[in-house]
Amino acid sequence: MTPYSPRLTRLIEALRRLPGVGPKSAQRMAFHLLERERDGARALGAALVDALDNIGRCEQCRMFCEDQACRYCSAQRAETGQLCIVEGPADLVAIEQNTPYRGRYFVLMGRLSPIDGVGPEELGLPRLGAMLDAGWVRELILATNPTVEGEATAYYLAEMGRARDIRVTRIAHGVPMGGELEYVDAGTLAHALSGRRSL
Amino acid sequence: MTPYSPRLTRLIEALRRLPGVGPKSAQRMAFHLLERERDGARALGAALVDALDNIGRCEQCRMFCEDQACRYCSAQRAETGQLCIVEGPADLVAIEQNTPYRGRYFVLMGRLSPIDGVGPEELGLPRLGAMLDAGWVRELILATNPTVEGEATAYYLAEMGRARDIRVTRIAHGVPMGGELEYVDAGTLAHALSGRRSL
Ligand SMILES: [Zn+2]
Ligand SMILES: [Zn+2]
Repeated sequence: MTPYSPRLTRLIEALRRLPGVGPKSAQRMAFHLLERERDGARALGAALVDALDNIGRCEQCRMFCEDQACRYCSAQRAETGQLCIVEGPADLVAIEQNTPYRGRYFVLMGRLSPIDGVGPEELGLPRLGAMLDAGWVRELILATNPTVEGEATAYYLAEMGRARDIRVTRIAHGVPMGGELEYVDAGTLAHALSGRRSL
Repeated sequence: MTPYSPRLTRLIEALRRLPGVGPKSAQRMAFHLLERERDGARALGAALVDALDNIGRCEQCRMFCEDQACRYCSAQRAETGQLCIVEGPADLVAIEQNTPYRGRYFVLMGRLSPIDGVGPEELGLPRLGAMLDAGWVRELILATNPTVEGEATAYYLAEMGRARDIRVTRIAHGVPMGGELEYVDAGTLAHALSGRRSL
C-alpha cells in the first residue's frame, strides 16, 4: 500500500511534472503547501488555470501573449527596423530586462535539431520568411544560444536574411560557449548585444 | 514596465511560493508549463484545488487525512500498543516506507520552539496526553529529529510518558546529528528504529 492517500498521491505526481522536481522535492512541496501555505496553493491552482485559459501565443512573434495586441509587436518597435531572433521566451525576457534593445522579436520556441524532428516548420521559419519579405526589417539580430545547435540555427537564419539582402548580425560571444543565454549576468549580456558583429 | 504580462507575472509569483523555488526557477517553470506541459499544468491546477478541498487533518494523529477513518489510526495498529511521535508528515511516510513499524503515530506538525511561539498547545500535546491517558499505549517511541529543538521536544515528551508509567524509547542515533530524518537513507533509518533504547 502506498503511504499516501489517493489525493495526496495525485498532488505529488502532478508536482513532479514541474521541471527539476524529483519525487522527494514533490513530496516536500505537497506537505509544505498543505501544512503552511494553503493560501499560496489555492493562488497557484487558480493562476495555473487562468494562465492556461488566457495565455496564448502571438501570431507574429510567437511569444506568450494574453492580449489582442502583442506588446512586443507594436508599430513603434517595427520603426527601429530591428528584428531579434531568440530561442525561447526566457531569452526575450533576459534581453528586454538587461539591455536597451527595444526592437521587435521572433521567438523560435526551440532550435533546429533534425535528430529530434525539429526543422524550419516547427520553428515557424516560413512565417519569419514572410515577415522578412514584408520589407520593414533592416537588421536581423541573431541571439540564439552559442551551443552547437544554436550556432547551426543562426547559420540557417543568416542565410534567410542574406537571401533578402538584409543586414544580419550575431550577438557577440561574451556569452561563454556552451552556456545558456538565460543564465548569463546582465553586464555580459548587455556587452554581448552591443558588441554584435555583421555576418 | 515588467517584461511579463499580468497573468504570467501572477503565475510566476504563485510558483515562487513553492519551497526552494527562486525567481529564476519560477520563471523557468512557468515557461516550461506553458510551452511544453500544458496538460501537466492543468492536472496540477486541478490536483491543488482538489487536495485543498478534500485533504484535512486526522483528529487523532494530526496526519493529513482525506477519509472518515484515518488509515494510521486503526484499531489493529492500536493493538501493537506502540505510538510513534514524529515532527512532520514526511517523517511518518519515511518510517512507514522504510521500516516494518506498523503501530500508531502522532504527528506534531513542528517541534517545541519557544522563540518562535511554538509551545505544547501548538503541537497538540494536550490531545497526546489524553491519548496516553486512554491506557492502550505501552510504548511511546520518540522519533523527533536529532537536532537541538528535536531533542528538547523528545525530552518534554519523555516526561509526559514517564508521568504515566509508560515505557519511553528514542530511535537510535544512527541518524547523523543535525540531520533531517526525512532525508536519511532507508537502511540507516531502519537501523535507527530497531536500535531504539529506553529513556
Ligand atoms: Zn508578438
Ligand atoms: Zn490518524
